[in-house]
Amino acid sequence: MSVFESESVNVLVVGANRGIGLGFVQNLLQGDRIGRVYATYRNLASAELTTLQEQYPQRLGLISIDITNESQIAQGIAQIQHQVDKLHLVLYCVGFLHEGSIQPEKSLQQIHAEHLLRYFQVNSIGAVLIAKHVLPLLKHGDRNVFACISAKVGSIGDNHLGGWYGYRASKAALNMFVRTTAIEYSRKSPRTLVVVLHPGTTDTRLSQPFQRSVRPDKLFSVERSVTQLLKVIEALQPDDSGQFFSWDGSRLPW
Amino acid sequence: MSVFESESVNVLVVGANRGIGLGFVQNLLQGDRIGRVYATYRNLASAELTTLQEQYPQRLGLISIDITNESQIAQGIAQIQHQVDKLHLVLYCVGFLHEGSIQPEKSLQQIHAEHLLRYFQVNSIGAVLIAKHVLPLLKHGDRNVFACISAKVGSIGDNHLGGWYGYRASKAALNMFVRTTAIEYSRKSPRTLVVVLHPGTTDTRLSQPFQRSVRPDKLFSVERSVTQLLKVIEALQPDDSGQFFSWDGSRLPW
Ligand SMILES: NC(=O)c1ccc[n+]([C@@H]2O[C@H](COP(=O)([O-])OP(=O)(O)OC[C@H]3O[C@@H](n4cnc5c(N)ncnc54)[C@H](OP(=O)(O)O)[C@@H]3O)[C@@H](O)[C@H]2O)c1
Ligand SMILES: NC(=O)c1ccc[n+]([C@@H]2O[C@H](COP(=O)([O-])OP(=O)(O)OC[C@H]3O[C@@H](n4cnc5c(N)ncnc54)[C@H](OP(=O)(O)O)[C@@H]3O)[C@@H](O)[C@H]2O)c1
Repeated sequence: MSVFESESVNVLVVGANRGIGLGFVQNLLQGDRIGRVYATYRNLASAELTTLQEQYPQRLGLISIDITNESQIAQGIAQIQHQVDKLHLVLYCVGFLHEGSIQPEKSLQQIHAEHLLRYFQVNSIGAVLIAKHVLPLLKHGDRNVFACISAKVGSIGDNHLGGWYGYRASKAALNMFVRTTAIEYSRKSPRTLVVVLHPGTTDTRLSQPFQRSVRPDKLFSVERSVTQLLKVIEALQPDDSGQFFSWDGSRLPW
Repeated sequence: MSVFESESVNVLVVGANRGIGLGFVQNLLQGDRIGRVYATYRNLASAELTTLQEQYPQRLGLISIDITNESQIAQGIAQIQHQVDKLHLVLYCVGFLHEGSIQPEKSLQQIHAEHLLRYFQVNSIGAVLIAKHVLPLLKHGDRNVFACISAKVGSIGDNHLGGWYGYRASKAALNMFVRTTAIEYSRKSPRTLVVVLHPGTTDTRLSQPFQRSVRPDKLFSVERSVTQLLKVIEALQPDDSGQFFSWDGSRLPW
């Protein structure tokens, strides 16, 4: 029995231009029970996303959102509200570990305040701005899910290795934003389950420079990660709102 | 038996112009075993801090640091390095909950991205910049402590009430920064213990607008908070590095 009771499930994937977000869109469009899928990209839609749009012109809507721009978020959500009055699944897949000259810090010496601010802006604040604007589309009678992709390295208690200051702290902040959102939603939209998910190391541009140190059986294809995460989402119970889950359904410590 | 083995303990209190930071300076200057105390203020030193300086001209050094300005941090630490070659206790007491037009958010609707960035800049990033610059003063043979004032509402696992998005997430991020620093310091400065502390609700400008809902016996005077936190610090054991302690010495969940 799936968490989604409705016949037709509308989905919004934020950060769907490539990587895990794109994988969700590809996988979901193949499902029978999926109604409309909205996929956001930042500047130019990728070839993969454009091709999908040509393949599913009725079901896939592309929306341009740079997550650091709140008015773009508001406009993007308004665009969706013109077309549907309910979303059943919102997936926040935006995130970065390296970007331009920003590389994850190996030590305190490599810390730059502006880089840290950028990590928080994209990896943490973007998610809570989505939570702020998407709420009206989730306050309907059907059970629905708002899930954000965090990372196990964002677990404070599980941190035994050190390094990656900005990425780690931005994911810990994301976890707090999501947990706080879960509490507010439980009052305003009690049928929404709000969770953070760890996808496991997945073969995307984000992990590419760090894959050498990963055991091959621990490096998931995007397709595999997405299938595993959707299984975790489908199995969610009301009590699970506000919690942090790994790809295998186990709970992660904060 | 105290964590500090040395005869003469040099201290740096960051954010000492008022509130808990000022309280630490007042308390410590009365101790026999305390050598030099360095106290930072942002713009203008407060009357209290100036009076203390007149009272203890040999032992108290005032240093001007706006925590959002890394070159001021570097200059401030360099000033200390001209005078002493060791610090034994560094206390990060900078933080805000409300500032100018920024008020803790009661709901998602009150979230502003720029306000969230400011919370991270002051409450989280400032501490890790201090950790970056102060390390040379801690890498000596004597046991020493780097402690940051966090808050129980920054515990993700303990969050059952919601609200205060920016303050909560900035303290969770601070906790992650401190834990990650503890790991790096354990390699580079193994005699340094690095912890986060919750002071309990304390009668300062920060808590002033929210004191009505606090039971009188749960609202500590600055003097009481500072005495309690110093007791927790004195009792720290090597294994405690990287952990989160409450004012009564109990461990808090992440
Ligand atoms: N891959 C892993 O091993 C792994 C492990 C743990 C957690 N995660 C998390 O999984 C999530 C997805 O990562 P991924 O591996 O799929 O990485 P990816 O392939 O690099 O994809 C990142 C996505 O984020 C979008 N993005 C970045 N900055 C943005 C901004 N300012 N505004 C809007 N969109 C922005 C990118 O859009 P553009 O194409 O427009 O740049 C892209 O769609 C991230 O949160 C990541 O931290 C990944
Ligand atoms: N009071 C409580 O109930 C309570 C409870 C839990 C945790 N805490 C934490 O305890 C710590 C101390 O707070 P408090 O209660 O003593 O508050 P406070 O009286 O308002 O003092 C805040 C201190 O932070 C400094 N500060 C703020 N922004 C700064 C910046 N940009 N650069 C440099 N210094 C800056 C202030 O300096 P100026 O005087 O120059 O502005 C002041 O010294 C904070 O981290 C707070 O989150 C307090």
